[in-house]
Order: sequence, then C-alpha cells, then structure tokens
Amino acid sequence: MSNPAPNATSSRPTVAMLLYPGLTLLDLLSPHTTFSGNMDIHLVWKNIDPIVTDSGITVHPTTTFADCPTDVDVLFVPGGRDQAATAADEEVLTFLEDRGSRARYVTAVCGGSLILGAAGLLQGYKAATHWTGRDILPLLGAENVNDRVVTDRNRITGGGVTAGLDFGLVVLAEMLGEDIAKITQLAMEYDPQPPFDFGSPEKAGPAFTQLVRTATAKTNDDMLRVVHELNAKGWGRARGGVPV
Amino acid sequence: MSNPAPNATSSRPTVAMLLYPGLTLLDLLSPHTTFSGNMDIHLVWKNIDPIVTDSGITVHPTTTFADCPTDVDVLFVPGGRDQAATAADEEVLTFLEDRGSRARYVTAVCGGSLILGAAGLLQGYKAATHWTGRDILPLLGAENVNDRVVTDRNRITGGGVTAGLDFGLVVLAEMLGEDIAKITQLAMEYDPQPPFDFGSPEKAGPAFTQLVRTATAKTNDDMLRVVHELNAKGWGRARGGVPV
Repeated sequence: MSNPAPNATSSRPTVAMLLYPGLTLLDLLSPHTTFSGNMDIHLVWKNIDPIVTDSGITVHPTTTFADCPTDVDVLFVPGGRDQAATAADEEVLTFLEDRGSRARYVTAVCGGSLILGAAGLLQGYKAATHWTGRDILPLLGAENVNDRVVTDRNRITGGGVTAGLDFGLVVLAEMLGEDIAKITQLAMEYDPQPPFDFGSPEKAGPAFTQLVRTATAKTNDDMLRVVHELNAKGWGRARGGVPV
Repeated sequence: MSNPAPNATSSRPTVAMLLYPGLTLLDLLSPHTTFSGNMDIHLVWKNIDPIVTDSGITVHPTTTFADCPTDVDVLFVPGGRDQAATAADEEVLTFLEDRGSRARYVTAVCGGSLILGAAGLLQGYKAATHWTGRDILPLLGAENVNDRVVTDRNRITGGGVTAGLDFGLVVLAEMLGEDIAKITQLAMEYDPQPPFDFGSPEKAGPAFTQLVRTATAKTNDDMLRVVHELNAKGWGRARGGVPV
C-alpha cells in the first residue's frame, strides 16, 4: 500500500532526483516513496533514455538536465555501484553545482554524498555516507559524521542504502512539518525490526566488515581515483577554495 | 552502494516475484535488494509489457506466467494501491496457485498477503499484512498476526511496505543461513533509526490511524468486495475446503 498522505499545500514542493547508470535503486526509491505523496518529483538525467539501475530494473528519466526546473526545493543524489563514473562526469557536476546553488535543500544518501562532494557541494559541511565511503568525504572537504542522517544548514545527507527511509522522513518533517512525516511513517508502517543487530561496522565487527569492504573495494578504489583527479581539476575539495 | 554479498552456492535459488499494474514498488524492491546478491530473480506478469507501479516508475517484467520456471524456490507477492483488481483476476490466481503448490516458500509483504490469500494459499496459516488489511485476512481463512514478519511452516509474510526489509532478511537467513543475511544487512547498512516512534497504529494512536484509514479506504473497500466475490466462486477462504 502506497503513501496516502494528503497534500499539505496546494503548491507542492519540487524535488529533482539525479538518475545515472548503475545507481542503487533502493537509494532512490526509499526517499521517493516518502516524498511522493506530498512533493512533485523530477527524475533527471542527461536525456530521457532508460537507465539501468544496479538492481537490473530500468528507470525512465522524467526530464533532462536542460529541461529540469531551474529552481527546485530539494536536490537529491543516490549512490550506486558505478557512482565513480558519474562523479567524474563534468556535465553532471555542472548540473548539480547549478541546481545546488539555489535549492532550498541539497541532499544525498549513501554514495550519493560522494557525488555531491565531487561537485564541491559539501565543502565545509558535515555529512554522512555509506560506511565504506567515510574516509573519502574528508578528501572532498566534508567532515564525515557516523550518524544515520546528518543535517548541517541546508545540507541533509544519509548513510548507506536503507538510511534513505530515515533520511526521507527527516526531510519531510523539515519541509512540511512533523505531522506529515508521521502520517507517512504510519502509512509505510515504518516500525523496523531487523532480524539481526548487524547494520553497521561497529555492530558487525571487523571480520564481517572486512568481507563487505573486500566485496565493495572496486567501487571505493574507483571513487578515490576520481576524487584525486577532480581535486586536481578544481572540483571537489578545491571548489570551496581550499588548496588541494 | 548495492548488495555485494558473494554467492553462497553455485546453484542459486530462484525467486518469482509477481508484478501487476499499480503495485507498490517499495514492497517489491526491498526484498528484491536483499535477495539479488544471492538469488536469481524473475519478475513475472501475463506479458512483458512495462508495468506502471504506484510510484509512477515503470518496471519491465523479465518473464511471463507461461515462461516462468515451473518450480521456484520462492514465490513472492507485493501489495499495491490497485491490489484488489489483481486479487480478482483468475489468471493471476491460477498462476499463484500453481507455482505456490510447489514453491519451497510462499511469501508476500503488505497487501500482497491478501492476494496470496485470494488464491487460497493462506487457508489455515498465520500471516501478516499491512495494518489496514488485518481484518481482511480472516475472511481468506488466514489467522492475522500483528507481527513484523510471520513464519508458519513454508509461508513467510510481512507487514506493510517497509517490512519488506525485515522480511527479506528473514527469508535470506532461512534459505541461505544467518551469515549471508548478516553480510547483506551490513552491506545495506540496515541499522534503522526512524525519526519518530510512529510506525504502527498502536504507536500512532487513534486520530492519526483514522487519517490513514480514511486515505486508504478505497483500497480496502475494493479488496473486501473482491474477497466476498472470490469466496462465492470457490477461491480464497473456500479454496481450502472451509464452507463460505
């Protein structure tokens, strides 16, 4: 059953959610589901060709970088297995830099925070990301915080994948008030009861943590390489004026 | 970052996940994401035309009722705003009855449990569903249990929408062992921290509960009508031999 929360305002806030090949669909869909009852969502990419996400499920952009509203209330970026290629793409970074300069809220979950950072949008901000990417945030001028959702002025970022639910409700409460967020949480029956207490490296311990690090090493190695290249070009950490 | 859990076996279990117009994509995607690292997933509908989910995002079936493997390890059904139309469709029910008769696990989350029940597959079983549908399960011969995930013999069912994460990890642990489920939970950073303690009617209280009931009344009224029609035809509660 989907989100039945009624509209809070006659003029609904707008959200631009970045799509890109290989994005993690759950990173996108959790916030999308929390927002969709009360906000107008644009799924944005360079063109409107179908995007294959890392779930194998294809998603169709609803608009392009050129046609996306110039002023949006929320800019959002998801993570993904192939996030480094997107972080390295200056057409993407230019779009994010532009919309991010005027958005009321500049947001991301999971590895999406690293893409925001690549665009120079987290310079001097506290932020969260997937736990495997925590060491990369400082290379982009951001201060990593190991919280589920981190709010620093108008930057709101979440941890890995499933943090998108907590993140989505925090953004909803911030924009439309706690009652709308609570109705949405109830409609989504978000009363989590994980079968194991194992959702962070601190809880899982070093052996399991190393297993996941090894399995995701390529994603992070690729991103590290891109971050160094971007900093040399004047994006990322350098964008905020901090010497590389 | 997606699920990087390594394969547990050389022969991966197969999952058939039902698609239908108006399904709640998050009902589908949460279990899909937990399964996708270690199981082979078939997205099944009558044909392979694109399906518009209630998020507005289109999903492409990967196979049809006719071509879906005859023996699957897991049969899964999601809920959706338009679930009643699917529960009323005897072509769907015939497919579910057939695959469900041989599947190792017959499963659903949210309103998907009501569709399983419509096919006669929950007759005599304990089950969970979205809290707005709890009163409907007994009309299908099932015993409603207000738990997040309910396992009764080979039936595993979850509550509303976001219960799909807890459900997916329970199924993964049952099929492939706790270590695989724990690695997946860590990779998905499933360490939930909802901003409010508001995810069930018991926690939200009667006023908010009524707001959501009113907003979802059509979905439930439609399903109630269909359940009575199905029982009269010999599906649902009657399928297990219990007099209507």
